[in-house]
Amino acid sequence: MECLNDLLGYPNRKIYQNTDWFAFSLDSVLLANFVTILPRTKTILDIGTGTAPIPLILSLNTKAKIVGIEVQEDLAHLALKSVQYNQLDDQISIVQKDVQSYAEEMESDSFDVIVSNPPYFKVEKNNFHNQDLHKTLARHEVALSLEELFQCVRKLLKNDGVFAMVHRPERLLEILDLYRQYGLEPKKIQLVYPKEGKDAHMVLIEGVKHGKPGLRLLAPLIIHDSNNQYTQEYKDFIKEGENEPKEL
Amino acid sequence: MECLNDLLGYPNRKIYQNTDWFAFSLDSVLLANFVTILPRTKTILDIGTGTAPIPLILSLNTKAKIVGIEVQEDLAHLALKSVQYNQLDDQISIVQKDVQSYAEEMESDSFDVIVSNPPYFKVEKNNFHNQDLHKTLARHEVALSLEELFQCVRKLLKNDGVFAMVHRPERLLEILDLYRQYGLEPKKIQLVYPKEGKDAHMVLIEGVKHGKPGLRLLAPLIIHDSNNQYTQEYKDFIKEGENEPKEL
Repeated sequence: MECLNDLLGYPNRKIYQNTDWFAFSLDSVLLANFVTILPRTKTILDIGTGTAPIPLILSLNTKAKIVGIEVQEDLAHLALKSVQYNQLDDQISIVQKDVQSYAEEMESDSFDVIVSNPPYFKVEKNNFHNQDLHKTLARHEVALSLEELFQCVRKLLKNDGVFAMVHRPERLLEILDLYRQYGLEPKKIQLVYPKEGKDAHMVLIEGVKHGKPGLRLLAPLIIHDSNNQYTQEYKDFIKEGENEPKEL
Repeated sequence: MECLNDLLGYPNRKIYQNTDWFAFSLDSVLLANFVTILPRTKTILDIGTGTAPIPLILSLNTKAKIVGIEVQEDLAHLALKSVQYNQLDDQISIVQKDVQSYAEEMESDSFDVIVSNPPYFKVEKNNFHNQDLHKTLARHEVALSLEELFQCVRKLLKNDGVFAMVHRPERLLEILDLYRQYGLEPKKIQLVYPKEGKDAHMVLIEGVKHGKPGLRLLAPLIIHDSNNQYTQEYKDFIKEGENEPKEL
């Protein structure tokens, strides 16, 4: 069933979703608040935007033009509806296309910032994945492998541009290798923990194209306290987004 | 001035130090509590043991034989005095030698576990370092580079053996590369933060020789609370060491 929801923690943004598929996740909200957007940032690309939660959140704090790419027609359709509902047509474009074709067509060095919340799981042989195609494409690297993602990023990102992603801790080493292999110097990492005393369940990573070495390991982000309430640090983390953008 | 101190948080252990040089640091206490020591662990090597804080702490929880190597004669002398004072001569040996010569002489695959709190700073040309030789050797890679350390570890560590170290976040990527380059699979990382909301200032890393991939990012360890007191999690982290070993 299609429905219009509040965007988690953002009363000024509504998002269309389809409850038969899957909801946008906390991961996207975290990534949107982690990535470095500067006043000089003019162009942002969200690879695999889904129902566009990241562009919708980013638009609260930047005037940059944002492109969200989504290969799945149904999701791209919902993303577009949300953009229109929030009257953000001038700022956010939704492109329904696979990112490799998009990268081939576009000029090199087109974006100041690229973000991605990619599928987390590798495709294994004889592994039939989720029966639901929407979930399968969002969760498994069927449409795009991690390495193919980096190939696209290398072409589309400007020199000194920023590429930020969210992923699982198990694949951190592989991801750090890919960053460097594709000329992106890792500059900040933030580990996300579901609760105090638990292992990290998500990793936020940001690198700069041809940047100088110098990695910061940011303060840990713990999501829930012992009563299963959001921690103050989580609320602070996403707080900036609660205001309307200053100059829009 | 030479003096006999309590070993930070360990009332059952005393340590000789010389106040003219430098004190053993929190780093060593953290590393001693981070490294995986199993009941089957029979042999442990501490490379660059200084005044031997790590062997003294480890001996509280294991019956394994521990060797501490220290190239500086004065420090090795104090380490030996502490071992004798704590009546641990049967368990802990102090070897005054540079680790590369030691590694050449020893048989391959001699140790179940190796730990090291190495110098943190690279040697730069025309960089005169600390005037004090003790501090210089402990803080700068004069006697042993990070890569030379890994060469020694590769030779001396058994298959499936554990190598754990503590270092600065700025060198994490380089260290992860060295782990894998020398056949040590990173298995757990724990980030240490001086205070809530601050960047990590130390990284604890453990890898297994020819281990299977699968990295855990352990719960963050924050040392001080907002009143500059030790946090409960820090106290819990080092707590195990406060008891006498069960079977010794």
